[in-house]
Amino acid sequence: MRNLFVLLIMCMTGFAGYAQDLQEIKLNAPDRTRGSAMMKVFSDRMSVREFDSKELSLQDLSDLLWAANGINREDGRRTAPTASNRQEIDVYAIRPDGAYLYDAATHSLKPVAKGDYRNLVAMAQEFAATAPLCLVIVIDLEKQGNQLMGAVDAGIVCQNINLFCAAVGLATVPRATMDQAELRKVLKLSDANLPMMNNPVGYKK
Amino acid sequence: MRNLFVLLIMCMTGFAGYAQDLQEIKLNAPDRTRGSAMMKVFSDRMSVREFDSKELSLQDLSDLLWAANGINREDGRRTAPTASNRQEIDVYAIRPDGAYLYDAATHSLKPVAKGDYRNLVAMAQEFAATAPLCLVIVIDLEKQGNQLMGAVDAGIVCQNINLFCAAVGLATVPRATMDQAELRKVLKLSDANLPMMNNPVGYKK
Repeated sequence: MRNLFVLLIMCMTGFAGYAQDLQEIKLNAPDRTRGSAMMKVFSDRMSVREFDSKELSLQDLSDLLWAANGINREDGRRTAPTASNRQEIDVYAIRPDGAYLYDAATHSLKPVAKGDYRNLVAMAQEFAATAPLCLVIVIDLEKQGNQLMGAVDAGIVCQNINLFCAAVGLATVPRATMDQAELRKVLKLSDANLPMMNNPVGYKK
Repeated sequence: MRNLFVLLIMCMTGFAGYAQDLQEIKLNAPDRTRGSAMMKVFSDRMSVREFDSKELSLQDLSDLLWAANGINREDGRRTAPTASNRQEIDVYAIRPDGAYLYDAATHSLKPVAKGDYRNLVAMAQEFAATAPLCLVIVIDLEKQGNQLMGAVDAGIVCQNINLFCAAVGLATVPRATMDQAELRKVLKLSDANLPMMNNPVGYKK
């Protein structure tokens, strides 16, 4: 009875933070020919902390997420290797309209929570909340019980993001600071999920 | 007196494993224009476990180490970011002739120990010892006390290696297995050094 009452209240109030009006974002097929030559990318790789507030184009968003942790082969393997192919890394996209989970299998962004939670990624470093997109890299410790290996694999996804941005002229910086406790609630994470790194991403100012 | 005696014996025996006849390898300037376009690299990135035994050319070796963790800017910053720029990651090159430490400041390989220690990297996975080069990624916990952050940064260097290899057609696979205890001795590591990952690298078979 009490559960029913809670459900009723949730329906009536629209359940603040619930993703019901947030739509799935179907991403474009990745442009597999794009970007600078690899060694030029390594030459250009640097952390940038100033962002234009303009939203990323759908193609940039699509290529960025695929580069980060997309499926690059028929057998379902990824751009980012994981120990024993456990695929324990999830990437969340935090945008002004809401928080989404990147689903590599369908190459789409699944709604998680409506609202602007970039301040939870930024915390005191306000520059991070000025980016139109923050990617949050989360380790699933149920899939990979060794936290150190999970952290290695999170670093691998993070560097994919850093290098993709260097290759196409986007600004980003890898960060570990974020409001873990509040992000856990917003992203509906379990205790086995560890938000490890994040990357604000935007066009250069 | 006893120390003098030990020193004398070391000189007489040539101190097995000492790098005295191993020469520093001056690396070529990196070719900053080389390699496939970034998105093609992400498309091609995969783990390969078969290697031609042929030694890498000096240019390939030079570009590989620079890509992994070289200095890409005048201010001494690297292709691989580290938390708070602590630069706590060292890369060792284990070759048939000996073990070397990559020195980013001089872009050269400094001799560490004469002899073929690739079997210590391979352990039971013998394929790894067939590669002409194994890179070992070591965290210096004196520079970065947070092991998880060190592991993230090790993953970043590891992915630089994976992507460079995909960009120029070299074979590699990221691994965590290695004989930590024996490698610590050979590489003269302190307790604060944690060998975290390794990449055998070679031409494709």
